[in-house]
Amino acid sequence: MASTEPRAGAGLPRAEADLSALFAPATLAVVGASEREGNSAGYVMKNLARFGFAGRVIPVHPKAETVFGLTAFPSLSALDTRPDCVVIGLRAELVPDTLDEAGRMGARAAVILASGFGEAGAEGAALEAQVADIARRHGMAVCGPNCLGLVACDSGAALYSSTISPDLPRGRTALISASGASAIALAHSGQIGLAALVSAGNSAVTGLADYVAHFAADPGVDTIAMVIEDMGDPDALAAAMEHVHAAGKTAVALRVGRSAAGQRATAAHTGALAGTEDAARAFCARVGLLDMPDMDSFLAALQLADAYPTPPVLPRAAVLGVSGGGVAHVADIAAEVGLPLADLSEVSVAALRDLLPGFATPQNPLDVTGAPFGDPALYTKVLEILDADPGVGVVLAAQDAPPAMAPDMAAEYHGIAGAVAAYTGQTPVVALANLSAGLHVSVATAYGPAARLAGTRAALTATAQWATTPRRVTWRAAQGNAPLPAQMSESDARALMAPLGLPGPLEQLVTSGEAAAEAVAALPGPAVLKIASPDIAHKTEAGGVALSVSAEQAAEVFERIMTSAQAYAPEARLDGVVVQEMVGEGVDAMLGLVDSPPFGPGLVVGLGGTLVELLDDAAFELLPLTHDSASALLKRTRLDALLDGYRGAPACDRAALIKAMVALSDWGCAHAGALEAVDLNPVRVLPLSQGGGLRLLDALILTKKGAPD
Amino acid sequence: MASTEPRAGAGLPRAEADLSALFAPATLAVVGASEREGNSAGYVMKNLARFGFAGRVIPVHPKAETVFGLTAFPSLSALDTRPDCVVIGLRAELVPDTLDEAGRMGARAAVILASGFGEAGAEGAALEAQVADIARRHGMAVCGPNCLGLVACDSGAALYSSTISPDLPRGRTALISASGASAIALAHSGQIGLAALVSAGNSAVTGLADYVAHFAADPGVDTIAMVIEDMGDPDALAAAMEHVHAAGKTAVALRVGRSAAGQRATAAHTGALAGTEDAARAFCARVGLLDMPDMDSFLAALQLADAYPTPPVLPRAAVLGVSGGGVAHVADIAAEVGLPLADLSEVSVAALRDLLPGFATPQNPLDVTGAPFGDPALYTKVLEILDADPGVGVVLAAQDAPPAMAPDMAAEYHGIAGAVAAYTGQTPVVALANLSAGLHVSVATAYGPAARLAGTRAALTATAQWATTPRRVTWRAAQGNAPLPAQMSESDARALMAPLGLPGPLEQLVTSGEAAAEAVAALPGPAVLKIASPDIAHKTEAGGVALSVSAEQAAEVFERIMTSAQAYAPEARLDGVVVQEMVGEGVDAMLGLVDSPPFGPGLVVGLGGTLVELLDDAAFELLPLTHDSASALLKRTRLDALLDGYRGAPACDRAALIKAMVALSDWGCAHAGALEAVDLNPVRVLPLSQGGGLRLLDALILTKKGAPD
Repeated sequence: MASTEPRAGAGLPRAEADLSALFAPATLAVVGASEREGNSAGYVMKNLARFGFAGRVIPVHPKAETVFGLTAFPSLSALDTRPDCVVIGLRAELVPDTLDEAGRMGARAAVILASGFGEAGAEGAALEAQVADIARRHGMAVCGPNCLGLVACDSGAALYSSTISPDLPRGRTALISASGASAIALAHSGQIGLAALVSAGNSAVTGLADYVAHFAADPGVDTIAMVIEDMGDPDALAAAMEHVHAAGKTAVALRVGRSAAGQRATAAHTGALAGTEDAARAFCARVGLLDMPDMDSFLAALQLADAYPTPPVLPRAAVLGVSGGGVAHVADIAAEVGLPLADLSEVSVAALRDLLPGFATPQNPLDVTGAPFGDPALYTKVLEILDADPGVGVVLAAQDAPPAMAPDMAAEYHGIAGAVAAYTGQTPVVALANLSAGLHVSVATAYGPAARLAGTRAALTATAQWATTPRRVTWRAAQGNAPLPAQMSESDARALMAPLGLPGPLEQLVTSGEAAAEAVAALPGPAVLKIASPDIAHKTEAGGVALSVSAEQAAEVFERIMTSAQAYAPEARLDGVVVQEMVGEGVDAMLGLVDSPPFGPGLVVGLGGTLVELLDDAAFELLPLTHDSASALLKRTRLDALLDGYRGAPACDRAALIKAMVALSDWGCAHAGALEAVDLNPVRVLPLSQGGGLRLLDALILTKKGAPD
Repeated sequence: MASTEPRAGAGLPRAEADLSALFAPATLAVVGASEREGNSAGYVMKNLARFGFAGRVIPVHPKAETVFGLTAFPSLSALDTRPDCVVIGLRAELVPDTLDEAGRMGARAAVILASGFGEAGAEGAALEAQVADIARRHGMAVCGPNCLGLVACDSGAALYSSTISPDLPRGRTALISASGASAIALAHSGQIGLAALVSAGNSAVTGLADYVAHFAADPGVDTIAMVIEDMGDPDALAAAMEHVHAAGKTAVALRVGRSAAGQRATAAHTGALAGTEDAARAFCARVGLLDMPDMDSFLAALQLADAYPTPPVLPRAAVLGVSGGGVAHVADIAAEVGLPLADLSEVSVAALRDLLPGFATPQNPLDVTGAPFGDPALYTKVLEILDADPGVGVVLAAQDAPPAMAPDMAAEYHGIAGAVAAYTGQTPVVALANLSAGLHVSVATAYGPAARLAGTRAALTATAQWATTPRRVTWRAAQGNAPLPAQMSESDARALMAPLGLPGPLEQLVTSGEAAAEAVAALPGPAVLKIASPDIAHKTEAGGVALSVSAEQAAEVFERIMTSAQAYAPEARLDGVVVQEMVGEGVDAMLGLVDSPPFGPGLVVGLGGTLVELLDDAAFELLPLTHDSASALLKRTRLDALLDGYRGAPACDRAALIKAMVALSDWGCAHAGALEAVDLNPVRVLPLSQGGGLRLLDALILTKKGAPD
């Protein structure tokens, strides 16, 4: 279970995060409202009227007697009642006092519209911290600052500071967006219907996790959509996702600022800091949050979730259509985006062979030929055959009939659309148009309530995530604060790793050529000599490693290594040279931990050796890992095939490696607070035929600057 | 220059391929036309009337006196005139005689609608071959069989066998499609205007290249769009692409059936055989054919080509918008699809700093802030600053204002759209909507003639290809037929490669343990012993390789290798054991040729050694290679970094490797007719510090079955 402990910067504790005063206030004060064109709080007044907000609205204006026909009060303190929520339309410097006044009056929520906070340098950040303190002291929920506000369609609470129409398509999706412009665009795409819209801005107090938890409990919401620039506190978001899954709802994310250039633009925008892409992607998968790569696939995932709240039992698709080229294109894109196609059962193949014209091939993807144009019932029968096939999880019925068609042409597709509408099976059927331009209005109507997606790549990207993402939380914050020394030599590091199933070779530190020769002579075979220095990370580049050293060569090699290392890094402290047992052949793995804020440490594994960066075989997963997830992670590497005994080589000890991965994960969780990175490379995985096991041949541990040691 | 020689199966020779009788016939006979519902030639009659075809239309029907009000003739031979073109609406078996009759009467073209040809088994294929023979004998152009026909908007020649409306959006794009359904969908997307549409079907006679060459010469066409299931004769297509580039036109392809599953569906559909994906992609790049991965990016590329016939000078984009989140998303997708962003000049940065509000950051991607809502001229000025920046090749002005917006909301975006319309600079500006749902109609109108794309991923994928694909042909068919022995031992293969700058180590074949010991003793150091057999491809797996063998060990190793090899492959002929010089350390490359029909041989290069499949570092390019293209190909591999002396290793002889790649390419061209594959692995690239050069340590050459030796 994810922790539900409140953490600094995490917004309100879950238990106290009652956002009802934001989304359905009974009494609302709007501070700074005027009828002047462009007045931010004036927009809110107009929107409340347009959306038919049923509660009481009280404009606060120092001089005006009325604002948009409503009686105004000169200040909050002059109000004749306690407002549930206060919309603050004042400039940044005036916000803290007003918020404090609202809190003292007993307001439970506020919307802060102004910019000039965290996104605007150190002064703004200080102002934002002040706002957060005040809100927490009074236990208030706050939308913003630097936001457009929110719209709750049911209550008519359109606390929104820009033009928005009550014609907004309504539905059961709640949209939380860091970007106001994106929220407005998505809300009016015509593809989804909204229950609520939040332009969250800087989220200084009430954060993403709070909104998600709120909508998880909102009976008017089935699907929670988020445009994320800053994930906020991952622990809180994971806890909120538990509520989402418990309620049987679907949450879908679009993360912006994933690229370096994109991050530049969002940093300019909200001052948010994103984690690495690998870590963010892993986090979404670990909390069951659908993680869409672009606006179009984001919208398609929302449409799917809306049409089918329960994902398919099996993530395998059947594709059918009346055009060979059309279904081939769908199959091409399915392969590219990782949506597996179903193998049809023998029963299905036989039934299709009986049903379809002789020149049709009963296979997946399935070209049913043009026969359904004359006999639409045939198409419904095909859908029923696919529904009965236990290997089919979702059916994609591909048919284009784009908007610019003449009505008589479009009419030829009504039969197929009607055949999809007539289908009553259990397996989800998606009406798919290859072109994102979508469908002629008459064809769209003929499809009836069937889910319709347009644009092959976006639709299939969404279908793949929707069908394959497990709806559960398997991530929890690694909160261990066990200390680590501030600086560690390689042998210090190896000593820490040995109890995790990662023993090093026999070894001895020597400080003279003579001692080196003696140490080598004491080993069963030739030795490895390595420079011992806390200051040299890349020993090979420093000329600090020698292999296959015999007792006779040892003294000379000792001198050479010391000289090279000193030339490479004249400032480095040199403790001497480590003489090590020469470990037998096996497969070299790389294993590591890397702190990935805000998600904590992640584990990387892949092919090891000196070519590790070049081979780029690093699979990443956030801690904690179980035996199963470690095994799955290893399967994502090229290393995996090597362990089996690639091209006649002996099979090596995979089980020991997986055990060490889990042990390293546990150790990483325990030391999360102090850990920057662990780099174990190579980890020699030894042949099973020689008893197996691992040997850690080189280790580097970096601690966080300023972490307690 | 690409060859323009006619080849078997290549359709008409380019010089004779006059398609004017197909697209603008003066007199047209329609054989098999009747007024019966669903009659294929009847559709053609109706479409000709709807499109206002100005030529004479003569229905041919055994009994009817008139068809759709036009006087019918009982047979072709009974006609009172010579038809330029004959539409044949009869079933497959009747087609050859009718086509022959048309040819004898002097018809220069035909459209064959029926299916039951190459796509329908051996019998159909024979019928198709017969049709092709007849057409070639008479010098006729033929659209089909197994097609819907064609529409030429200018002449009104709507020789099209399904419902199509004259309201078809008109323009300067010609669309050639293997899939009738895809053609209709694309034609009515509302995103492009058509000059002509061809549903090419099986292309038994007139092929893709013929249509491309025709449209390259058609003054009514600027952009040539192709939905391809079968590339046809690549040599002819390359020749046609020369004409496209010479005419300053743009050609854009969407290939369907790229995946195994997709290929299954198209194979069922037209019997087409596709080359490998790598080869097809390389071919498109080498002939300057934009190669789009999905329908949406295909359409976007067509829109770009239509708006800007000349691609940008520099493939670098500037991104601007009024939303930080919006431009960040564009930057994210640009990074993912490989569209490079421009570095703004200091002049631009200074000008933007002067122009924009203080809280805006003058960078790329550029959030211009909401200021242009009040002052649209500001937005035009930003476009002008970007236009003046020599580092900017194309500007993406990102603004969503989707169709489901209320009119008053949409009106707020008219200023920005108008600001784009007011821009008069030279740098292409694309109005980009992140959502493929596109724009509210009033906003779209306000953009005026500016190019508008919708859907970030599709738009940027198209922009990247449009901006980076060189518009020239650098591929030519490798037509050499120099013979090769049918079977070659490893040493035969190495002997063939040695003159290409790929010498092997010193070596000697021995047939006894005694001789092996003598041979090793004659070498300067230890030796490698390898089984010599024409029947064993994977020597390591056969236990047929031993390294570092001393003269003392040689006799025993000889016996062990022979025994292992016999156990591994009891049927194999064993010629003995090769004793080889042990080559010094360096970097192991893999170099090869692979026949890639229909494009001929391609060259692969990458990291070598026993892990080659696992490391999967194979970059592919079609022959012929130049020094520059070989160098560029090498840069696409991880091998490339190793050659520089990775992590302190010595730099190796890259120049020798590139030279060998070019020599191998020339050799591959000369032997193209006989060659199946060449696998050179490892090719040891030696350190420059030791004189450099290459050593070919293992070679395999496979010839085509049935190729002349």
